Amino acid sequence: MILDKINSPADLKKISVSELPVVANEIREGLFNRLTKIGGHFGPNFGFVEATIALHYVFDSPNDKFVFDVSHQAYAHKMLTGRKAGYFDDSRFSEDSGYTNPDESEHDFFNIGHTSTSIALALGLAKGRDILGKKENIIAIIGDGSLSGGEALEALSVAGSELNSNFIVVVNDNEQAIAETHGGLYKNLKALRDSNGKSENNMFKAWGLDYIYEENGNDIASLIAVFEKVRDSNRPVVVHIHTQKGKGYELAEKDKEGWHWCVPFDRATGKPTVNFGSGESYFGVTSQYIVEKAKKDKDFVVVTPAMPMSVGLGPEERAKLGSQYIDTGIAEEAAVAIASGIARRGAKPLVVTNMTFLQRAYDQISQDVCINKTPVTMLMNYSSFDGLTDVTHLGIFGLAAFTNIPNLVVLCPSSAEEYISMLDWSIDQKENPVLILIPGNAVSHRPSDKNYSALNRFKIEEQGEKVAVIALGDFFQKGEELASAIKEGCGFTPTLINPRFASGLDKELLSSLEKDHQLVITLEDGILEGGFGQKIASFYGPDKMLVKNYGLKKQFYDRYNPSELLQECGMTTEQIVEDIKALLK
Amino acid sequence: MILDKINSPADLKKISVSELPVVANEIREGLFNRLTKIGGHFGPNFGFVEATIALHYVFDSPNDKFVFDVSHQAYAHKMLTGRKAGYFDDSRFSEDSGYTNPDESEHDFFNIGHTSTSIALALGLAKGRDILGKKENIIAIIGDGSLSGGEALEALSVAGSELNSNFIVVVNDNEQAIAETHGGLYKNLKALRDSNGKSENNMFKAWGLDYIYEENGNDIASLIAVFEKVRDSNRPVVVHIHTQKGKGYELAEKDKEGWHWCVPFDRATGKPTVNFGSGESYFGVTSQYIVEKAKKDKDFVVVTPAMPMSVGLGPEERAKLGSQYIDTGIAEEAAVAIASGIARRGAKPLVVTNMTFLQRAYDQISQDVCINKTPVTMLMNYSSFDGLTDVTHLGIFGLAAFTNIPNLVVLCPSSAEEYISMLDWSIDQKENPVLILIPGNAVSHRPSDKNYSALNRFKIEEQGEKVAVIALGDFFQKGEELASAIKEGCGFTPTLINPRFASGLDKELLSSLEKDHQLVITLEDGILEGGFGQKIASFYGPDKMLVKNYGLKKQFYDRYNPSELLQECGMTTEQIVEDIKALLK
Repeated sequence: MILDKINSPADLKKISVSELPVVANEIREGLFNRLTKIGGHFGPNFGFVEATIALHYVFDSPNDKFVFDVSHQAYAHKMLTGRKAGYFDDSRFSEDSGYTNPDESEHDFFNIGHTSTSIALALGLAKGRDILGKKENIIAIIGDGSLSGGEALEALSVAGSELNSNFIVVVNDNEQAIAETHGGLYKNLKALRDSNGKSENNMFKAWGLDYIYEENGNDIASLIAVFEKVRDSNRPVVVHIHTQKGKGYELAEKDKEGWHWCVPFDRATGKPTVNFGSGESYFGVTSQYIVEKAKKDKDFVVVTPAMPMSVGLGPEERAKLGSQYIDTGIAEEAAVAIASGIARRGAKPLVVTNMTFLQRAYDQISQDVCINKTPVTMLMNYSSFDGLTDVTHLGIFGLAAFTNIPNLVVLCPSSAEEYISMLDWSIDQKENPVLILIPGNAVSHRPSDKNYSALNRFKIEEQGEKVAVIALGDFFQKGEELASAIKEGCGFTPTLINPRFASGLDKELLSSLEKDHQLVITLEDGILEGGFGQKIASFYGPDKMLVKNYGLKKQFYDRYNPSELLQECGMTTEQIVEDIKALLK
Repeated sequence: MILDKINSPADLKKISVSELPVVANEIREGLFNRLTKIGGHFGPNFGFVEATIALHYVFDSPNDKFVFDVSHQAYAHKMLTGRKAGYFDDSRFSEDSGYTNPDESEHDFFNIGHTSTSIALALGLAKGRDILGKKENIIAIIGDGSLSGGEALEALSVAGSELNSNFIVVVNDNEQAIAETHGGLYKNLKALRDSNGKSENNMFKAWGLDYIYEENGNDIASLIAVFEKVRDSNRPVVVHIHTQKGKGYELAEKDKEGWHWCVPFDRATGKPTVNFGSGESYFGVTSQYIVEKAKKDKDFVVVTPAMPMSVGLGPEERAKLGSQYIDTGIAEEAAVAIASGIARRGAKPLVVTNMTFLQRAYDQISQDVCINKTPVTMLMNYSSFDGLTDVTHLGIFGLAAFTNIPNLVVLCPSSAEEYISMLDWSIDQKENPVLILIPGNAVSHRPSDKNYSALNRFKIEEQGEKVAVIALGDFFQKGEELASAIKEGCGFTPTLINPRFASGLDKELLSSLEKDHQLVITLEDGILEGGFGQKIASFYGPDKMLVKNYGLKKQFYDRYNPSELLQECGMTTEQIVEDIKALLK
């Protein structure tokens, strides 16, 4: 392999341009090796192999600095910067995070996993460079629908006016987000593609940036030529390149959405090689509910910032929803505010995405929704410690972030029945903004109340004595386990409580516990700080009641083993029973 | 007055077009009456009188629906929709909030105070209308620099592709934000103004919206004509009107930044009629520090999302900062991410704005800054209950929002010396992202430590017994007061602690208190939920130590009296001493 000789960008520059397509093929073999075995981002990486080679051929990393948006397309960059082993050596896959990571390499400047950040981060590098009086190329690389995010648009506008120095934005236009793109700006990209960059009303030029178009975004020689034109530019410039998402694997070229990301698969057939089981999943429960609800209630409308798959809405389900579905593209802020407007007008919006991405709309939830008490329902996927474990995609911060916003009802269902009841109640009620956390554990079943209008009513699932276990949401099952272990280990029956609401306390119920309980245990699926249990500790602060809060540490965990993490945080049933014995002494 | 006959938009429509300029003059008299006496937003309202009249003349509010961005320019709208008394009757000023408010009128659809929300909120109304099968005009009105905010740009892009029905965006272009505008998109607005709307590279057309330009934005007849053209449009359309900020008052026309907002003033001279005292202020202390720091440290750079005045940086100070100052325009997300890039490149960024606006950058603080541990310092004005009291501008949510983000050091200084020491330490250190809350009380003086590298070290300012008072930041003075009152009322000396850090606990110090203290009191300037004190309650939860947390309720307070609010929350010194006596029994 030529790639054997390439351990740094300097090595790449020794290869002749005519041999570079061979390097591209070799890189794709590395991609295949890793992705067929452990999965990951497929389409974005396969489409960006040639561009990555050309970028490293023309620019001088790490003196010149690349910032990759989302950084899920940076696998080829990793292979060219000394990290081939993470792709070719099966025993070393775990060395590469799947995103850029300064701990891995001096060629990476940020740990990135959310969209639309690259232009602003790179602009900061450029401003810092200017402040320090240095010279180098700063290059932001953005694609896969990220350009429609507010942070990217803000930064693009700032670049067009506030920086009179080198700054290069590579718009990697593969005509696709994860699903199809949404947003007027993609009309402009299309017009520019269709006119070979010559269309009038060029959004980049409108904002004061220079602009170059390159149609052959998977041709290394063409890309080298265009990057050489802008190298050492002393003005902000956009290089708009047209690439093919999933390039080099026919199945992925045809089904761009399906192959944005992949699980381990068989290269010959494209079929997954892991078994997900055939049982119920919250994805399935949710998408089925949504499609049925839309059918029988024409005022119901789903709003998503480019994350329909977060609740299992594939192309087929979306077609069924028709005009009762609006994808804002990557635009969390607008999605939440639009939902507020929809609710104010009298229709019934449901916002769906992953918990970690909702952080983008923190202010909109507070100002546009909660101050206005518009009955928006927000349904969050991956809001558990036991979901995505990349540091940029953790679901463990949601309780701390959102339970402290006034007027927002945060519901944590503990079973499928409770989940659907809460969802159904929330969508139809007109009084409250509601955030619902999709349970992160396996689907479980238990009878549920139907109405949640009386806010903050906790539910005693089993009356006991001495110790009360308040186990929130998908940790209720751990609560049940703990209650059994207490019975067995301590010789008495504790009270087991399903709080259901994470955003307020059932003060009456909590006060009633003081009569025959000495200790309250809280369990929650998230960090402790700012979350659920600390509110209970504060409630009992002036009283004799002992309180022990269990939750994760306030920490950016990265690629952890979920059960080891619970142990590290002292949250296994055995550990908690030991604590209880000590506290009751 | 003609205005005497106008109690609703229907009344306005009975007036002939030729008489409408008289109505405009009368409205300005109402503005003068209110603004000279109680202050408020001056320039935005004076500039938008004619447009407001024309909008209400052409459209049929509240069936047709207006959404005003920031809604600080809605005074004339209020006068035309039955709320004249709030402008002409001095005894009824308080009836009008200064922003749109659905509790005041059926002509207002949202409580709005943050920027850049109008397009998304209105787009939601339009989508809701379509879902319900109704017909009406939906009009978003945006100006004063708000268009550069990510939420506005996201929504504009969504409007250009996802809505094929009536939707009208009025871009009120007065060539100004609060200070001068920043951002490439303002280059496009200028090019459009200069070409009477005919410039190539029209950003609105680029994104799929129709577009009309009207140069005479303060001429009622011209505006009526242009609004009639777009009324009942079945496509999203932008109406770009050129208005004069501060129109009708020479001083305001000349000094647009100075007259964006005003305190009570004398109409003849423009001079304030309230006395601010000549003593020190944290504004003054801050701007002086910044200018001096920039002079002696060329790596230091101030980043602000259009809020230089939040730390007293007027045109003169900004001129001194030169290239060590970057205003991103209204673009909080980009500002924070740019600061992260600046820090990563090795320069020293300081982000300044108001606490409430930082919510916009919640995700950027978490992902772009804190995961990356870039040494960004963020300095927040109005982070106290005793600052801005409009529901949309409260500073009381900052501790709950930001102290739970890992890696972020939140510092709460209790005196001018401590404030400047913290700022100086933070800007120069390279280890941590830091958020500093500018104290909301009067400047006080006390010797201070210089180095805060040992994180989460609380400081015992007076050693005592039985009760420990932990009083955070600008509430330390209340702690001193409380300690004195305890001495007097309870007959012993309590321990008084200045925690300084709000984002982590000094566990060693807290543990040491268990020896000779029974009760810990926490005082903080913000809501209790998710904030500082609850972390301490959780720490002591499993122990005998009693803890009583004092802070505000999780509630959207609106236009409150600060000292009454403290009383309502049981936080006066007298109330707390009574509580302590009861708890020690």
